Amino acid sequence: MSTILVVEPVVLPNGETEEPYLATVKDDETAIRFVSLPSGPPSIETFYDEAIAVAGMLPLIATGSDGCDAIVVDCMADPGVRAVRELVDIPVTGPAEASVALAMQLGHRFAIVTIFDNGGPWTELQVRSMGVESRLAAAVGVDVPVLELETDPEKTRQVLLDAARECVERRGADVIILGCTGMFPVVEALRASLDVPVIEPLAAAFKTAEMLTRLGLTHSHRGLYRRPDPGKHLKRR
Amino acid sequence: MSTILVVEPVVLPNGETEEPYLATVKDDETAIRFVSLPSGPPSIETFYDEAIAVAGMLPLIATGSDGCDAIVVDCMADPGVRAVRELVDIPVTGPAEASVALAMQLGHRFAIVTIFDNGGPWTELQVRSMGVESRLAAAVGVDVPVLELETDPEKTRQVLLDAARECVERRGADVIILGCTGMFPVVEALRASLDVPVIEPLAAAFKTAEMLTRLGLTHSHRGLYRRPDPGKHLKRR
Amino acid sequence: MSTILVVEPVVLPNGETEEPYLATVKDDETAIRFVSLPSGPPSIETFYDEAIAVAGMLPLIATGSDGCDAIVVDCMADPGVRAVRELVDIPVTGPAEASVALAMQLGHRFAIVTIFDNGGPWTELQVRSMGVESRLAAAVGVDVPVLELETDPEKTRQVLLDAARECVERRGADVIILGCTGMFPVVEALRASLDVPVIEPLAAAFKTAEMLTRLGLTHSHRGLYRRPDPGKHLKRR
Amino acid sequence: MSTILVVEPVVLPNGETEEPYLATVKDDETAIRFVSLPSGPPSIETFYDEAIAVAGMLPLIATGSDGCDAIVVDCMADPGVRAVRELVDIPVTGPAEASVALAMQLGHRFAIVTIFDNGGPWTELQVRSMGVESRLAAAVGVDVPVLELETDPEKTRQVLLDAARECVERRGADVIILGCTGMFPVVEALRASLDVPVIEPLAAAFKTAEMLTRLGLTHSHRGLYRRPDPGKHLKRR
Amino acid sequence: MSTILVVEPVVLPNGETEEPYLATVKDDETAIRFVSLPSGPPSIETFYDEAIAVAGMLPLIATGSDGCDAIVVDCMADPGVRAVRELVDIPVTGPAEASVALAMQLGHRFAIVTIFDNGGPWTELQVRSMGVESRLAAAVGVDVPVLELETDPEKTRQVLLDAARECVERRGADVIILGCTGMFPVVEALRASLDVPVIEPLAAAFKTAEMLTRLGLTHSHRGLYRRPDPGKHLKRR
Amino acid sequence: MSTILVVEPVVLPNGETEEPYLATVKDDETAIRFVSLPSGPPSIETFYDEAIAVAGMLPLIATGSDGCDAIVVDCMADPGVRAVRELVDIPVTGPAEASVALAMQLGHRFAIVTIFDNGGPWTELQVRSMGVESRLAAAVGVDVPVLELETDPEKTRQVLLDAARECVERRGADVIILGCTGMFPVVEALRASLDVPVIEPLAAAFKTAEMLTRLGLTHSHRGLYRRPDPGKHLKRR
Repeated sequence: MSTILVVEPVVLPNGETEEPYLATVKDDETAIRFVSLPSGPPSIETFYDEAIAVAGMLPLIATGSDGCDAIVVDCMADPGVRAVRELVDIPVTGPAEASVALAMQLGHRFAIVTIFDNGGPWTELQVRSMGVESRLAAAVGVDVPVLELETDPEKTRQVLLDAARECVERRGADVIILGCTGMFPVVEALRASLDVPVIEPLAAAFKTAEMLTRLGLTHSHRGLYRRPDPGKHLKRR
Repeated sequence: MSTILVVEPVVLPNGETEEPYLATVKDDETAIRFVSLPSGPPSIETFYDEAIAVAGMLPLIATGSDGCDAIVVDCMADPGVRAVRELVDIPVTGPAEASVALAMQLGHRFAIVTIFDNGGPWTELQVRSMGVESRLAAAVGVDVPVLELETDPEKTRQVLLDAARECVERRGADVIILGCTGMFPVVEALRASLDVPVIEPLAAAFKTAEMLTRLGLTHSHRGLYRRPDPGKHLKRR
Repeated sequence: MSTILVVEPVVLPNGETEEPYLATVKDDETAIRFVSLPSGPPSIETFYDEAIAVAGMLPLIATGSDGCDAIVVDCMADPGVRAVRELVDIPVTGPAEASVALAMQLGHRFAIVTIFDNGGPWTELQVRSMGVESRLAAAVGVDVPVLELETDPEKTRQVLLDAARECVERRGADVIILGCTGMFPVVEALRASLDVPVIEPLAAAFKTAEMLTRLGLTHSHRGLYRRPDPGKHLKRR
Repeated sequence: MSTILVVEPVVLPNGETEEPYLATVKDDETAIRFVSLPSGPPSIETFYDEAIAVAGMLPLIATGSDGCDAIVVDCMADPGVRAVRELVDIPVTGPAEASVALAMQLGHRFAIVTIFDNGGPWTELQVRSMGVESRLAAAVGVDVPVLELETDPEKTRQVLLDAARECVERRGADVIILGCTGMFPVVEALRASLDVPVIEPLAAAFKTAEMLTRLGLTHSHRGLYRRPDPGKHLKRR
Repeated sequence: MSTILVVEPVVLPNGETEEPYLATVKDDETAIRFVSLPSGPPSIETFYDEAIAVAGMLPLIATGSDGCDAIVVDCMADPGVRAVRELVDIPVTGPAEASVALAMQLGHRFAIVTIFDNGGPWTELQVRSMGVESRLAAAVGVDVPVLELETDPEKTRQVLLDAARECVERRGADVIILGCTGMFPVVEALRASLDVPVIEPLAAAFKTAEMLTRLGLTHSHRGLYRRPDPGKHLKRR
Repeated sequence: MSTILVVEPVVLPNGETEEPYLATVKDDETAIRFVSLPSGPPSIETFYDEAIAVAGMLPLIATGSDGCDAIVVDCMADPGVRAVRELVDIPVTGPAEASVALAMQLGHRFAIVTIFDNGGPWTELQVRSMGVESRLAAAVGVDVPVLELETDPEKTRQVLLDAARECVERRGADVIILGCTGMFPVVEALRASLDVPVIEPLAAAFKTAEMLTRLGLTHSHRGLYRRPDPGKHLKRR
């Protein structure tokens, strides 16, 4: 039995976690625990949102992860994943990193269909920091805010399908990654309409966390992930 | 319940598969089936070995994978993985690809400790074809033939440890990938002696195959993986 | 006459800004204004420190930059530079980005001598996100905490000199960038001992901000820098 | 006088080698010898075809190359070129590698017009493994099977011309490489219609083999090309 | 007070330097000196033009730069910048290098609108030699010869605007760099019509030269810039 | 019968061309014509030398190449190769480009042993402009001026051998390229002492020129190589 902490790096607009969805994804022997922000952005659509969200989630990690075997940060920006790795000794996964790692094993070039136009260059920066920019076919925004993805599911499905088809038919993609973990409700409909694999990033990050737990693997603190010293933090005199 | 076909792309020298090891790795709900070469190389140490092995394993796929949910090719050269993907609709994983995908999520730069000196450039070619050469710290051979890895486990452990330490302390690696699926017996000993994660590639490929099965994901035949037409093959008149 | 806001993304340990140094760097027609964190880290040495610092500095930007012509963030991690650009219409510079842009015009490959060992991979990530990793010769840590750089200036000078010489003589660097804006007190001593240019990053960022002001150039909000909507941020109900 | 072995890695559908064409290409002092597969694919259009072909051709090398000065593998997939280099001490060329090496000396970016859609990503993998992906403008399939290239030469010429024009006029190519050695009959017609150089890959590989012979150059067995030990191959007990 | 030498690497068609423009760009404490070619090309549109121009300008450097604090070469090809750096100990800037260094700090991907179609690949070569090809969105020619840029300013403005819009709206650019220092008269008009920053390269190079002067930075002769020995040059006997 | 123009982009110190050497390299049906500089550098060791040399050689091309079938520029800097291609319709080869194109077909990573320390970064720039930097193992200078290579052949052989061994044994090179066309006298001695191929660049460029002639291939003027208009060149009024 293992327990995975899912960090919602947002204020949940209606207080509901993605527990029902993850219940369909998780192994029987996995328990899930959730934490979410007490205050901050309800969605991460800018670097500003991300910065506020990360500072809000870091204080939740020590207590929240106590007794857990892995941590999943539930946002495609992989917000704070590096800082969380500094803090803990258990594996930490992010939806973007985990999705890209899977996409590399399913096709030649992946595309990411994301929220707004700024998501294109933002995604390129993420993919470049992973060092796999040569595998990225395209990253395109659909101009639907995160919180409206669920408002009109049929519209969401249609704009994502149009964007994905453009990526497949004209930009050379043979794998699609959904660019927001809030897009999971339409993944099956998209799979039914496309002849390439469609990766839902929250499930990718969650299953990768489970896998790392089973494999007994985690990052070390030798290289990039130095242990922080929160005790040095001050108040101005 | 799902069944995974493990393809041993070699003639098993003493007829024994890696079933005992994989039994410790697999999920309870996973069954394993094995096929191995009737004739060919007992180990893959050159492109010549690989070519003979791949042609020997491809005829085993159609029957061998019948009723299976995923395929794992048990060799770090990922021999024939692309051709097998052309032939089937279930996910196919290779130890090199799966290990690298995990390593990217555990550290900044990985190193691969492999068999002979030709393994260095060979590994570079593999990593470059995945497009992640900027994440590779080093690939070094230890000059122990595959079939001698088990002959003197203490020597194997020592030369691998020396090579891994060189990669960590002087070449900037913060993740080690074992460069041969025959090195699994010493992975725990190496982990005990190193302060960075050590990835055993057969387990990585196996668990990734399980994960893809659970996620309902496989490659498509739209892009790189055209369906072959074995019926066109001829004998010279 | 123009005014540049220098953001100290730390709690100033003794309350002193780098005003005396910047007074020797600035143009006559430039005025400087400072803001610093009321609480948070006194130095940024981990991603954790950076995250806390950025969330602390963002609320200072709107008021702090009122009437200013440019913003400089005084830390080599370029913390929050992207988020600040989202918030404002005036140019925003960071010491890492500005130093690298200068180094590209002074030599073939630059090296960065930084604080701790995690600074090596961290710097590589920064340089890769700028897309100029082929110009980076090396990034090496000297194992002196930021706040101790001034404690023993002679030791600081010596370890930086040793690290820089290693980069020049054995790693192919022909330009040195100091890896922390707190290293400015020793830059002249290093220049006297090395036959390659040594870039002090705070001065680089400050003069680049002045230059952008004179050139009438700033980023746009069309691409990467979407305007944030702080009004959407919530408290959990 | 030198002798070049041309390996046809296919079952020749009508038993005819490309001797008449190569007679127009070769130097006077060059003799040509041919070997072809006794059984296997009549054309290489998938990784499956390639794998079967390579295993069929390798046993022909030792005897076939006896007394020869160089080897040319007559297929744009460069099938088995690395394994053949392991086996011999004389130079071995492949049409893809030789064509790309020439294209780099004739223009800024080359395009490859190939057989099917899978040829696009396949070609990208080849070019990436050579490390010259930044010189590739495009790789596009024309959807004509290899064995039908000669069926309707006018159609072949037209679809290749259309594809090449698309690459030149809209994708930035200033050199065209034909993507199959079976396209040689239309190369002159294409040259007459295009204002950029058109490289016929079999001739490129053949003349490069001649050149290496004259220059006394061949690969070594120090790096990538370890000598195989066919004697270790087994039959299952 | 500092003096900057502006090298016009052309025969000025009507004898007029760009002094009036630079007077609006320079700091009060900067004086400008000009040299131009006595004979050679009136504009640099080919590698041939560039070669003749560079050989014509190098003999002007020693005397021309006497007493100067920095050198600017006024042509987007950055002609002879490396050779001039070999000759002198003061900083030397080129419009292409300086513009790209600024563009990297203003957006995600820049585009360069240049003179003729050969400017596309030529620009790619320049950007690749700086190592920042991943930041280049596009480089497109407008088919107006350098000397005709001023003939019909409205046409110049219109074709540059069309090209820039294509780069921004369809090629992903969020920064525009003018591809010829002769385009400065239309930069303000372009800025008024585009919602992304537009960099005028002569001003970028000039202000960067001023900045380097203020920072006390110049290249060294240790790495790329070996001191030449003009005394070894001969006449054929 | 074909005629190849060999351009010596230097003042030949003792008036002797490399005709005796090329006589051993050329095909029987090839005639050679030589031109050399009337004045300028006797060797190209800096960008300054190169610039003077190129301007001196361009006026020799039109007359010199009249009736010729190809042009070889005899210097490892490939000086003026692009400008010459603009001027003519016959193939033009350079020793660096031709050597690298061959090296890519003989091994995994090549090293270049060159003249002075500035040759390291200079070579990197050349290789990067070809787009094959991932194939370069190292470029190292031996600190022997070009004109002294022949003074003490035994010393030349020894320093080149030492540098080549360092590249092979510690830097991962499996192909050596001589970094100056004046090193040809020691190539056979080096080959006798090294177990990797050693490429002599003048022969590589010459044989590639012959090959292009036989293949009927040359560059086009569509892309990078715009036809220059020498008629527009002026004298200052």
